[in-house]
Amino acid sequence: MAVTIRDIAEKLGVAPGTVSKGLNGAKDISESTRKLILDTAVEMGYTTKRAKKAVDHRLVLFIENMRYDTEDLFGYDVVLGFQQVANQENWPVDVVPITPDYQKENPYDRTMRANGYIASYLVGLSLKDPWMQELQDTPYPTVLLDNYIGTNRNVCSLSTDNEEAMNLMISHLISLGHEKIAFLDGSAGSLVSDQRMQYYLSTMRRYHLPINPNMAVYGYFVSDAAKYHVPNFVELGATAILCGNDDIAKGVIESLNTLGLKVPEDVSVIGFDDMPFAAHLNPPLTTIRQDRLALGRAAAYSINALLRDCALSRPQLRPELVVRKSTAKARPRLVTKLVEEKDSVLRVNPSLYETIMR
Amino acid sequence: MAVTIRDIAEKLGVAPGTVSKGLNGAKDISESTRKLILDTAVEMGYTTKRAKKAVDHRLVLFIENMRYDTEDLFGYDVVLGFQQVANQENWPVDVVPITPDYQKENPYDRTMRANGYIASYLVGLSLKDPWMQELQDTPYPTVLLDNYIGTNRNVCSLSTDNEEAMNLMISHLISLGHEKIAFLDGSAGSLVSDQRMQYYLSTMRRYHLPINPNMAVYGYFVSDAAKYHVPNFVELGATAILCGNDDIAKGVIESLNTLGLKVPEDVSVIGFDDMPFAAHLNPPLTTIRQDRLALGRAAAYSINALLRDCALSRPQLRPELVVRKSTAKARPRLVTKLVEEKDSVLRVNPSLYETIMR
Repeated sequence: MAVTIRDIAEKLGVAPGTVSKGLNGAKDISESTRKLILDTAVEMGYTTKRAKKAVDHRLVLFIENMRYDTEDLFGYDVVLGFQQVANQENWPVDVVPITPDYQKENPYDRTMRANGYIASYLVGLSLKDPWMQELQDTPYPTVLLDNYIGTNRNVCSLSTDNEEAMNLMISHLISLGHEKIAFLDGSAGSLVSDQRMQYYLSTMRRYHLPINPNMAVYGYFVSDAAKYHVPNFVELGATAILCGNDDIAKGVIESLNTLGLKVPEDVSVIGFDDMPFAAHLNPPLTTIRQDRLALGRAAAYSINALLRDCALSRPQLRPELVVRKSTAKARPRLVTKLVEEKDSVLRVNPSLYETIMR
Repeated sequence: MAVTIRDIAEKLGVAPGTVSKGLNGAKDISESTRKLILDTAVEMGYTTKRAKKAVDHRLVLFIENMRYDTEDLFGYDVVLGFQQVANQENWPVDVVPITPDYQKENPYDRTMRANGYIASYLVGLSLKDPWMQELQDTPYPTVLLDNYIGTNRNVCSLSTDNEEAMNLMISHLISLGHEKIAFLDGSAGSLVSDQRMQYYLSTMRRYHLPINPNMAVYGYFVSDAAKYHVPNFVELGATAILCGNDDIAKGVIESLNTLGLKVPEDVSVIGFDDMPFAAHLNPPLTTIRQDRLALGRAAAYSINALLRDCALSRPQLRPELVVRKSTAKARPRLVTKLVEEKDSVLRVNPSLYETIMR
């Protein structure tokens, strides 16, 4: 059943007249009330007549590999944030789940033209996707989440600032006395994973912390990756483990427990994303918060800039470190089979290295 | 004398009624006409009554070390672009030239509050400026041109994408057969100079080109810097010289001519900025175009995002390579006093190195 002004008024505990004012941009209510009303209206699925009419500004959010139908999913707030800003600007938005097969059958530019879309937000695509080639010279203003096209002034890449995120994680651990910090990243070949690995290495170097190739590894974006790597990290003396997302962190905590180690007493663990479940892990997870709502909103602002001759390349959003209970003061642990060299780079016994790498 | 609607109509060659429609947001003229009218109105100094009234959204552009009163100056388009977008949004803008002394006497937050500014754009400031400390925790949404504050979610850093710029310059020269490419950067300690130096080095490395510390040096942002460095570059066998701005490039061309070398036959030269004079040098300068209008417009879009809970960190704009006559195919020249090593890193004779560095 269609959402009415009365429904919104009830949810917010205000008079229906106030909701009308908010939706119609009246000047005698505060900016924050107006925003709250618009955001709530979008979240509840209310569509104004005005928005329905403005068909010359139809936007599309194409989403792949990512669910967004319930609040506990990464995509939910990303989609919502995008809709919120688009709605404020009276731009209708279609949200269209896609697959690689869909892309093969429906070339990007043709799909945009056929549906009357003036700009798009591409969420969850990988560099291997069929549309990526076309994005090299599409005339349509396009915002890519977490991927980067270096050549087209109509396309920009939106992401969380991974360099700042790595700095937040590592300097937090340094303040707790940690030095041997391992990193279990997401999948190799994913742009975010590669960036985070690069910034892990440069940040460790900047702080003169020991870098060991066996403590900086790619897994997958799932908790299962942990059990192959955590025993090695422990053996190599890691007192803290950074993770490519919260799922990985969950697996890392389980693997540590299996080895008889406690988090954070024996080993500190930091996640990435701050998904809703992160606060409910045991212990509650210290993690990097990606502002998912802002990743939606900023995409709409970026489209606005691209539409008006501002060739943005890589807008980034600031991450935030949410400190919970999975990090604590470092407790030095026995390091075996390692030789620490004077330049503070750890080198592994070559035969052990072979074992770990294959 | 105040600019009238008739003045704008005359300049654009349209009817005064069309100008009125554009200024009042009427729906029966095209979006592009409306934009042109608004932009022209701003450029001519026309102020609508509507803009005058919206005092709850007053913005400020503080500008230091930079003139902006005529079209040939870097600041002119930056200021204009900022005013254009602010005007479209009905935000009045004050443009306030400042000095370090002004900053000492007028703390940032107090100045913002006293004047009723809700957000600001800081242009031309350096990291040594008195306000920089305050920016670490100001509550005012602030966009900094070409400087970076790493800790405050209310402040973002806007710049041209220097990594892309370096890639454009160097890959253009590679396509012309150049390998020994020198870089005469701007002042050491300036954030843009440091970034460009870093990206010069990483890009040269990525393309497996020879890196020589004596061919990657800081000068100052003036043409005079060239005469100290160009003779060394030539002696070291450089066939192309990248410059930190167009003024430096002007000096480099003069120095080369003094040495009896021609541009581009003997040495190619690339500038940075594409200032209006660059096209009129002899030869017309190949250079990186910074979109100054977009550096103004994007600041206003970024303020909009910051005001609405999008904590942007480092929005960047795409640079463009403008190819004119100062670059051409490489002509191999005699290289003296150099030993090329197998790893393709050039090493200078140590005593020569001493001479050059001091």
